[in-house]
Amino acid sequence: MQLTFLGTGAGIPAKARNVTSIALKLLEEKGSIWLFDCGEATQHQILHTNIKPRRVEKVFITHLHGDHIYGLPGFLASRSFQGGESPLTVYGPKGIADYIAVSLKVSQTYLKYELNIVEVNEGIILDEDQFYVEAKMLEHGVQSFGYRIVEKDRPGALLTEKLAEMGVKPGPLFREIKAGKEVTLENGTIINGKDFVGPSIKGRIVTILGDTRSCSAAVELAKAADVLVHEATFSEKEAAIAGEYYHSTAGQAATNAKEAGVKFLILTHISARYDTTETLLEEAQAIFPASSVAEDFKEYEIPAYKE
Amino acid sequence: MQLTFLGTGAGIPAKARNVTSIALKLLEEKGSIWLFDCGEATQHQILHTNIKPRRVEKVFITHLHGDHIYGLPGFLASRSFQGGESPLTVYGPKGIADYIAVSLKVSQTYLKYELNIVEVNEGIILDEDQFYVEAKMLEHGVQSFGYRIVEKDRPGALLTEKLAEMGVKPGPLFREIKAGKEVTLENGTIINGKDFVGPSIKGRIVTILGDTRSCSAAVELAKAADVLVHEATFSEKEAAIAGEYYHSTAGQAATNAKEAGVKFLILTHISARYDTTETLLEEAQAIFPASSVAEDFKEYEIPAYKE
Ligand SMILES: [Zn+2]
Ligand SMILES: [Zn+2]
Repeated sequence: MQLTFLGTGAGIPAKARNVTSIALKLLEEKGSIWLFDCGEATQHQILHTNIKPRRVEKVFITHLHGDHIYGLPGFLASRSFQGGESPLTVYGPKGIADYIAVSLKVSQTYLKYELNIVEVNEGIILDEDQFYVEAKMLEHGVQSFGYRIVEKDRPGALLTEKLAEMGVKPGPLFREIKAGKEVTLENGTIINGKDFVGPSIKGRIVTILGDTRSCSAAVELAKAADVLVHEATFSEKEAAIAGEYYHSTAGQAATNAKEAGVKFLILTHISARYDTTETLLEEAQAIFPASSVAEDFKEYEIPAYKE
Repeated sequence: MQLTFLGTGAGIPAKARNVTSIALKLLEEKGSIWLFDCGEATQHQILHTNIKPRRVEKVFITHLHGDHIYGLPGFLASRSFQGGESPLTVYGPKGIADYIAVSLKVSQTYLKYELNIVEVNEGIILDEDQFYVEAKMLEHGVQSFGYRIVEKDRPGALLTEKLAEMGVKPGPLFREIKAGKEVTLENGTIINGKDFVGPSIKGRIVTILGDTRSCSAAVELAKAADVLVHEATFSEKEAAIAGEYYHSTAGQAATNAKEAGVKFLILTHISARYDTTETLLEEAQAIFPASSVAEDFKEYEIPAYKE
């Protein structure tokens, strides 16, 4: 599981930072990639990575500001043109379906894959075998969502030695024991699978927020996350502007990270006014040391928990 | 007057060629720039040029395929964000107004300048002091326009020596004489301004075509143009594909240039299948020697005629 930043700037593209898009690579886990936001030229950024558009299975839009969606029609069209045939689902605030429909219709773009669009509300918006995703509204003047991506805990290792002591040999029963079911052995003994499985393996939690003022929903979504991606458009000096325009400062992001007890904080959506991000990083690390400032094309590994 | 190519590729962006956009710089002539098409990331390409978005006064869309319009909402929004306050007019096929309206509305983008949208038909779509623009339908499966930009001829130089012989001295009368009006001199003599003005100065003609199969409208629009910009998506080998997909080959573009009697031909909208454009250029030059293949960021000077 990796997070690759495709665009880390705020509002308008600049040479050093494109507008927002983040790829959550779940290639080892499920062979697919999830995109979060799709600012203009996201598909251009992808050309400079190893990401295959046909691998992108879901796109989550945090909010409908242009710097987060204007790359979506082009990405959807090119994914088809480049041979993408597997279904793709877009999740986003109310209005995203209209925007996609009109863009594709006006340009007479016919996709060769099934496109599903889900206009989301707060709550669990997606629940699969391995992952579920929870959405909560943030504070950005317009509807802006944060997404908490939760990898479900996996059953622990089978305690094969303990089973051997009971005379149970590897075979079809193992799967049922591992699933924690009650099983009747050949000799008639009934055992509870749960007693023969080690502690479950913790799943990872990744929280990716849309643009927002510092707010309690940000902290709730980030509770005990392995990684929190928080916007930090401004430095502390610009705290008043940040508040006025519904954005956060680096320090506010760090305070939320600390309060939520996350493992690692990544700051993104950096205003073009900052030539270097030293000050932003210092402000964050003074409050929450495990902080990093994202750059375009920077990739962060999110290691799995061990058995 | 210069033509700057911001994107010269076909269909989808590639590392070497972005999707279509062309800037016609009229800075010396009228202090403004006209854009032709606005594929995704046109505003990104502009970041690498000396073009100021606020100088862009008009955007002409040839047709509504995504690779020609998906950069428009972002360009319009950023022009406002970067302080553009002067009015801007977009010309394009029916549907362009809807596309812009929905894109700006969904993203809650409020422009600080007056935006006019003109859905065009064939004919003179614009007539100003210095320039007029004529549109004609091409053959592209969808409505696709070619635009003929005509600089109006300017009055020739005032024949000051001949006027001196008549005893006319520089003064307010000069303006009326230059305008070709009848004027009564101090001594009562009536002279015709037209007799005291040199031959008028020819204006330039630039023809920019949307995607098209080779067709007679292309030749009509290009008649005696100083520069013809013609798509050449394919090489002669792919002539069948070109026809099937409503595109042109380099040779067809050259044949049209020759038939129209243009001065110079620029090929653009090059398929990403070609690593080099040598073959395309050779094919064109075999028919019409004054041919060139556009590259992203290449700029062509279109010299003014002398007095
Ligand atoms: Zn934003
Ligand atoms: Zn095209």
